[in-house]
Amino acid sequence: MWLYVLELIGISVFAVSGTLAAGRKRLDLIGVLVLALVTAMGGGTVRDLLLDRHPIIWLADPIYLVVIIASAFLTMAYVRWRPPPEKSLLVADALGLALFSITGAQIAQRAGMNPVSCVLLGAITGSAGGILRDVLTAEIPMVFRPGALYVSAAIAGTTAFFLLDRLGVLQPIPMLIGIAVVAVLRLAAIWWQISLPVFRFGRDDQS
Amino acid sequence: MWLYVLELIGISVFAVSGTLAAGRKRLDLIGVLVLALVTAMGGGTVRDLLLDRHPIIWLADPIYLVVIIASAFLTMAYVRWRPPPEKSLLVADALGLALFSITGAQIAQRAGMNPVSCVLLGAITGSAGGILRDVLTAEIPMVFRPGALYVSAAIAGTTAFFLLDRLGVLQPIPMLIGIAVVAVLRLAAIWWQISLPVFRFGRDDQS
Amino acid sequence: MWLYVLELIGISVFAVSGTLAAGRKRLDLIGVLVLALVTAMGGGTVRDLLLDRHPIIWLADPIYLVVIIASAFLTMAYVRWRPPPEKSLLVADALGLALFSITGAQIAQRAGMNPVSCVLLGAITGSAGGILRDVLTAEIPMVFRPGALYVSAAIAGTTAFFLLDRLGVLQPIPMLIGIAVVAVLRLAAIWWQISLPVFRFGRDDQS
Repeated sequence: MWLYVLELIGISVFAVSGTLAAGRKRLDLIGVLVLALVTAMGGGTVRDLLLDRHPIIWLADPIYLVVIIASAFLTMAYVRWRPPPEKSLLVADALGLALFSITGAQIAQRAGMNPVSCVLLGAITGSAGGILRDVLTAEIPMVFRPGALYVSAAIAGTTAFFLLDRLGVLQPIPMLIGIAVVAVLRLAAIWWQISLPVFRFGRDDQS
Repeated sequence: MWLYVLELIGISVFAVSGTLAAGRKRLDLIGVLVLALVTAMGGGTVRDLLLDRHPIIWLADPIYLVVIIASAFLTMAYVRWRPPPEKSLLVADALGLALFSITGAQIAQRAGMNPVSCVLLGAITGSAGGILRDVLTAEIPMVFRPGALYVSAAIAGTTAFFLLDRLGVLQPIPMLIGIAVVAVLRLAAIWWQISLPVFRFGRDDQS
Repeated sequence: MWLYVLELIGISVFAVSGTLAAGRKRLDLIGVLVLALVTAMGGGTVRDLLLDRHPIIWLADPIYLVVIIASAFLTMAYVRWRPPPEKSLLVADALGLALFSITGAQIAQRAGMNPVSCVLLGAITGSAGGILRDVLTAEIPMVFRPGALYVSAAIAGTTAFFLLDRLGVLQPIPMLIGIAVVAVLRLAAIWWQISLPVFRFGRDDQS
């Protein structure tokens, strides 16, 4: 129950992020709603397709669609009056990333995947929505470009989760620590501008 | 039988649309054929993957591939001689959208989905092919950008289909009315330039 | 066993190609690794999703991920010292394409698909990784643009494979000839600059 509410909060935050991304691209109302849906549900959908888990959650339970569409409309209404609270959004997005990564990794574990695949599927659950959002607006995904840790925070947190679980620490402690590691790493990376090295080679295509 | 022929017509129209889109991008023959295939079969493929329906139709029945490839070659031959009949193509595309949306929604219904998901899957069936076509040519999808109603026409028509079906109206009346609503809305929107509001916010990325 | 080693070589080559593509885009370390993974495993993943084959190979067997990540790191280290051996890479990529296309077509055949679908799935297995790599870097896929034969070489080789198999030639002869046809056609096309005709129509979008 508690997880369900947290997951809906995560979905709502990602829907807000998709809506704001759409606002910079002059899309119409449908474009905004599709971007909100893709950003919020993309990660879970890719994970479920890869794991062959059916029915896909948002097809089975319409509350997901309702939360996403309501979040998109509230965001559009809000930014007519004043700019969105950037800092609160970053914190909320970090929590969404943390929650999606750890629950994604747990779902992969329950499907019998090995730990390496679980970590990868956790990272996919947390970040594929944002990647699809950027692809649909013809951008190189934000998470691939130089900037504060994102996917790497998800990988660190899911790895911590699995190590503690292997060491026999009882749930929900590994889960809570995993979520905390992702969120704290992500926020610390924003605060102190910690980023991964950039790999640059040959002719530069970025014009 | 009648539905099967209509579906092949819809596929053929979408293949023509993919071919013409490729023509503006200086692609080679393979690029053109892939865009024709993706535009025509993308919507049904995404729907079938989400619903876990297998085998995917165009893998099971080679006639689909034959129709698409023939349509692409005929289009390439035709436009060497004269410009394509824009108006006939818009009407045909509206019919393709209408047919794919309603049949997509019906297939979702038969798979036991709730009405909200069925409407969404209908809209996905009708529009995902065009979205993939635009992503593969590194464009923001046409259906997200300001312009005459497209996805919204599909949503209105599939909603009408479900309401009539719920009210106990016997098939095929809800189906035919649903198809008519999509096609008429789409064509009226082109004719009277009806479009959805644009949501614009913050720094504009469109350079 | 022999096939397994060849497949790992193919995966490694495609991971190198993804890494080098990332180097031209100023991505960070995660971006490079994701591009390497997507380039190497994208084709097989799309094939397996379309055929409903589960578990997806790289989720079941972590050796694939290890080979890809090691290849990406070795590539990044190597190009700090000197430029990569372009010619050896082209030969290796042609072998990767050949191997992935023929094994992809065989897997489709074993899944009971008709020959037309098998050829198509072989071509998808060989080229979808590169297409996804280009989409994720906001480029029109290289294989759609004018240039030396690529997808068409894969189609020719898988077609030769099926014709020989139909004529009753015993395995592994059709397989080896199929692989040779793809690789030789690809390399000959690079050497003599053989390319498919370009289809160009109407207003040119390429600015």
